[in-house]
Amino acid sequence: VNEIDFIAHYLAPLASPRYAHGLKDDAAHLVDVPQRGLVITADALVCGVHFFADDAPADVAYKALAVNVSDIAAKAAKPLGYTLTLGLSERPTPAFASGLAAGLAEAQAAFGIELLGGDTVAAKGAWWLSVTAFGEAPPCPPLTRLAAKPGDVLYVSGTLGDAALGLRLRRGDAPFASALTAEHRAHVLRRYLRPEPRLGLRDPLGAFASAAMDISDGLSLDLARLCRASACGANVEIDTLPLSDAARQAVASDPAMDAVLSGGDDYEVLAAVPRVHSDTFHAAAARAGVPVTRIGQIVSGNGVTGIFPGGQRKELAAAGYDHFRT
Amino acid sequence: VNEIDFIAHYLAPLASPRYAHGLKDDAAHLVDVPQRGLVITADALVCGVHFFADDAPADVAYKALAVNVSDIAAKAAKPLGYTLTLGLSERPTPAFASGLAAGLAEAQAAFGIELLGGDTVAAKGAWWLSVTAFGEAPPCPPLTRLAAKPGDVLYVSGTLGDAALGLRLRRGDAPFASALTAEHRAHVLRRYLRPEPRLGLRDPLGAFASAAMDISDGLSLDLARLCRASACGANVEIDTLPLSDAARQAVASDPAMDAVLSGGDDYEVLAAVPRVHSDTFHAAAARAGVPVTRIGQIVSGNGVTGIFPGGQRKELAAAGYDHFRT
Repeated sequence: VNEIDFIAHYLAPLASPRYAHGLKDDAAHLVDVPQRGLVITADALVCGVHFFADDAPADVAYKALAVNVSDIAAKAAKPLGYTLTLGLSERPTPAFASGLAAGLAEAQAAFGIELLGGDTVAAKGAWWLSVTAFGEAPPCPPLTRLAAKPGDVLYVSGTLGDAALGLRLRRGDAPFASALTAEHRAHVLRRYLRPEPRLGLRDPLGAFASAAMDISDGLSLDLARLCRASACGANVEIDTLPLSDAARQAVASDPAMDAVLSGGDDYEVLAAVPRVHSDTFHAAAARAGVPVTRIGQIVSGNGVTGIFPGGQRKELAAAGYDHFRT
Repeated sequence: VNEIDFIAHYLAPLASPRYAHGLKDDAAHLVDVPQRGLVITADALVCGVHFFADDAPADVAYKALAVNVSDIAAKAAKPLGYTLTLGLSERPTPAFASGLAAGLAEAQAAFGIELLGGDTVAAKGAWWLSVTAFGEAPPCPPLTRLAAKPGDVLYVSGTLGDAALGLRLRRGDAPFASALTAEHRAHVLRRYLRPEPRLGLRDPLGAFASAAMDISDGLSLDLARLCRASACGANVEIDTLPLSDAARQAVASDPAMDAVLSGGDDYEVLAAVPRVHSDTFHAAAARAGVPVTRIGQIVSGNGVTGIFPGGQRKELAAAGYDHFRT
């Protein structure tokens, strides 16, 4: 598939009918921008870093959109559109092109987002995707990670650690594997391949949260970032951390707790909610179909303290993925 | 420089004070979106494809913004902000990080654009940059390449072929080199390294053009695209094509005319202007300090015909860069 056909036959059908001129122009025109403004985020995925060379192109494309939409969801915004730049190691085959387009189409339908434009270039090395995504801002002041306050209750959505365990399974670095049923293994593998942005939390977050972000690099590191940005600290009650059955088995069989705390790739929402609103937030999230769990609270000071079963307190290392670790 | 310091010390000073939260959050909030909407474009550069491994990081960073702003300029829009994703082959050195930041800062000042956010990842191979840029839409219907009409006068800004000649010089593939003075050589090398988006054409384009685009892949290919998108053809009078002194020398000494027609990297504006407005457009561009040259006209039919000195007519091949040429 050459560059022109790739765009015309595989990408153009994904383009926003209203804004993207069928990808025939070199720019999109967002002619009716939401009055409340836009939330803008960008994340790139690289083969061999963020996904495996043998991952299906459809899964990779889906994930590239999902990790960006996850940021939009954590800002209580509504997905609107995205640009995609692709660096391809070789001329795409029809199977690659149609797989990629199918993954994008599936993600677009799931998240309510449309392609606005992009660029396709030759990569000199592993292939990569870079997405910039736009969301419609919520009817509240910008929701960031900067405004958590001591006393706020800390929540996370869903369960933690599944994707990190899935990644270890993929890598063959999983002493816990024998403790998992086939169903557990399928669960953690899918959680790694197919993150699900928590778009259902839009209204509860917009109405009640003082700060929020998605957890992409592990709870320890991302919560440390939220605390640093908000100039406060946090206490986390370790035995409240929400685990799937699969993760519970893995953690029981193996000291795999670091997957839960700092494994990354969770794409769950971490939110600080003023105590006075916490019950209402919790109930609104449940009504929206998104389970959230109270895991601790924001405190004055700095750093993240883990409170372990039995009452032992230990500073959690702000550990997570550094792209340029030596 | 690790990832956190790279963002905090080199990139955060470039961030939009109003929209980007000092890059401390994972999304920007474009809280006061221009009512007329946004023009959105994305282009990526890869080392070894779009620039040389020994290009200064400052030049590469400048070019990454310039080629995106060139699209914004060709849509009669006003640069506003951009996201940047970076794939780096190795942990950045302080020299690399400060060079990159200096090039971005210079481009931001030149083009009036601010950093909104982005992502830094490890590349597995050559390093690359991907930019998505936003501009404030002009007070006219979207200016695209889709609405040229037979009878429209074709204009290009500046001169053509310089950057392509500069690229050949860099590659050592330049039989014309001996015909150039040191000053000529410096000129074409700079035109390759430092494209200058034609922001001065904003008002003339917005007021008078029926279609416009920037020339990034060579006049022949880009004009063919404009004609296809507008369902029309074009005649180009070859001896009117604007050449710099350097390009004139090169073309005289060597059959280097293909650099002018299909060399690419010009980043000049190609515009179709209804005949009734053409003199006014020409004068307005001159007043704005941007030289434009009438090179032909839009005709009914399809394809791009070159009219050569002496009257010979020849279909110009829609030749240009294909990233996946076998």
